[in-house]
Amino acid sequence: MEGKKISVVGSGLIGRCWAILFAKAGFQVSMYDVDQVQIKNALETCKTQLKKMEEDGVIDNKKVNSEEILRKITGSTNLNEALSNSFYIQECTPENLELKKQVFSELSKNADEGTIVASSTSCLMPSLFTENLSNRSHCIVAHPVNPPHLVPLVELVPSPWTDVDVIEKTKKLMIQIGQSPVVAKKEVNGFILNRLQYALLMEAWRLVEDGVCSPEDVDLTVSKGLGLRYAIMGPFETIHLNATGVKDYCERYGSNIENICKEGGARAMSGKTAEKIHEAMCNIVPVDKLEDRRVWRDTKLGELFKLEHH
Amino acid sequence: MEGKKISVVGSGLIGRCWAILFAKAGFQVSMYDVDQVQIKNALETCKTQLKKMEEDGVIDNKKVNSEEILRKITGSTNLNEALSNSFYIQECTPENLELKKQVFSELSKNADEGTIVASSTSCLMPSLFTENLSNRSHCIVAHPVNPPHLVPLVELVPSPWTDVDVIEKTKKLMIQIGQSPVVAKKEVNGFILNRLQYALLMEAWRLVEDGVCSPEDVDLTVSKGLGLRYAIMGPFETIHLNATGVKDYCERYGSNIENICKEGGARAMSGKTAEKIHEAMCNIVPVDKLEDRRVWRDTKLGELFKLEHH
Repeated sequence: MEGKKISVVGSGLIGRCWAILFAKAGFQVSMYDVDQVQIKNALETCKTQLKKMEEDGVIDNKKVNSEEILRKITGSTNLNEALSNSFYIQECTPENLELKKQVFSELSKNADEGTIVASSTSCLMPSLFTENLSNRSHCIVAHPVNPPHLVPLVELVPSPWTDVDVIEKTKKLMIQIGQSPVVAKKEVNGFILNRLQYALLMEAWRLVEDGVCSPEDVDLTVSKGLGLRYAIMGPFETIHLNATGVKDYCERYGSNIENICKEGGARAMSGKTAEKIHEAMCNIVPVDKLEDRRVWRDTKLGELFKLEHH
Repeated sequence: MEGKKISVVGSGLIGRCWAILFAKAGFQVSMYDVDQVQIKNALETCKTQLKKMEEDGVIDNKKVNSEEILRKITGSTNLNEALSNSFYIQECTPENLELKKQVFSELSKNADEGTIVASSTSCLMPSLFTENLSNRSHCIVAHPVNPPHLVPLVELVPSPWTDVDVIEKTKKLMIQIGQSPVVAKKEVNGFILNRLQYALLMEAWRLVEDGVCSPEDVDLTVSKGLGLRYAIMGPFETIHLNATGVKDYCERYGSNIENICKEGGARAMSGKTAEKIHEAMCNIVPVDKLEDRRVWRDTKLGELFKLEHH
């Protein structure tokens, strides 16, 4: 990847983080913005942030130091120059549909043929701003989590006309720069992460509104309980390990959970979906290895415990 | 607390963990079970687990070592002996309402006057098994999270007739042994933690059932994204920091979230509840200190990042 060029369009908070991530992985990064002062600020912030990452040990400076990374990032106010020879463009402009339409139209005219154009949008479905573009098969959403250099998840959301190959290449690139991509098979409002986040937030809201507990206690329940487990494994592996596999869990606890979630729109925790989730989890942890995995989980929890207490 | 005695009734997985937690904090612990073999096994497991905690650095053996802790735990098959002189009883029998009724009736007859009797139940509301007891004002639920010696959250759930003083004393005891108590102001099915967990699980279920993404990608979204944040702060502080406070967040994003949560039974994210949550969060992080707290959050995320990558 040495010498291969990536463009970052928009030099705000998220654009700067993307620039650092790509440069850290060895790519040349050209960061575009309309205003020279904004570019200058962005490069200075990148420098400060890279220094902090080095101090905090987030960058392994035996491999590459912060100055080498910074040298790979250049700024430009000339769109054509910023995009030329790039095989991948990461768009990071404000969350506004009309603006995204304009920006994507500009990028479509100026990008090299075959270049992937990915939007960082957290909430706009890609079909809404790519439909009429000649390069629409090469457009996709690659939504990072804030702050991207510390939280590796990236949601890839294709539109109905995104090439399968573009999804695969973007996924590969994300893995290459150390991020963890997940792929939405279709566009939905809120994508994946925010749908999960909002479901929990709405229940938190109900608990306070219904006088069950204080906002502070909701937060403690997550940060001193649920969240420690979720930093290690997701909701499906959690239930997989909390019984003898997902199907056993659903048979034991499913009807009670459906009952508790009534206001929250419960689905039946049985049938084909139960089979599907059970099989997926068994591929990761076979039922006869559950105990080993529980030991692993507890070792990881012990590491989090020490982080908090020493 | 040296010399003060606590009884643990039921020597299964959770009973053993409670015994360790109380003994680690300096209490004498009497662990009761009906069967001598079960007691013997429990004490052996405590020994193994304490050794592992010492090896993993979860016990700070400059302060107290695993053998000293183990010596504070004794076993008994005589209920009267096990309970005599205890100021606090932690009940840890299987999750079965009829059994809990029987056990609590026995404990009521045998406990010293004024002794607090706490159940470890994860799902049975305390009014269901304490209503007719003479000591019902001293009964409460203290539900730990598995594994309790690594995940500190404890949910305290009083019945309508639990003394306020009993709630306060139990809360104080939990803090004293290093756990993080939260208090439900009234009984609800699923208490607090499981209601939050099930809301997220149900949305995860819908995402798979509706073909939005694979079970594996749901889990990655949590373990590489949402869960890293939730190991550091709860859902309300998260939104407090993701805008200029909770109220600003609700005004900006509330209607979109209500829309996304439609199937999941949305409440309006405005009005009195918004005020209440906003004030609670401002007590923890005033609006003019949000940026400092974001820096703190990122430092913590950096620690998690290093844990994963080095």
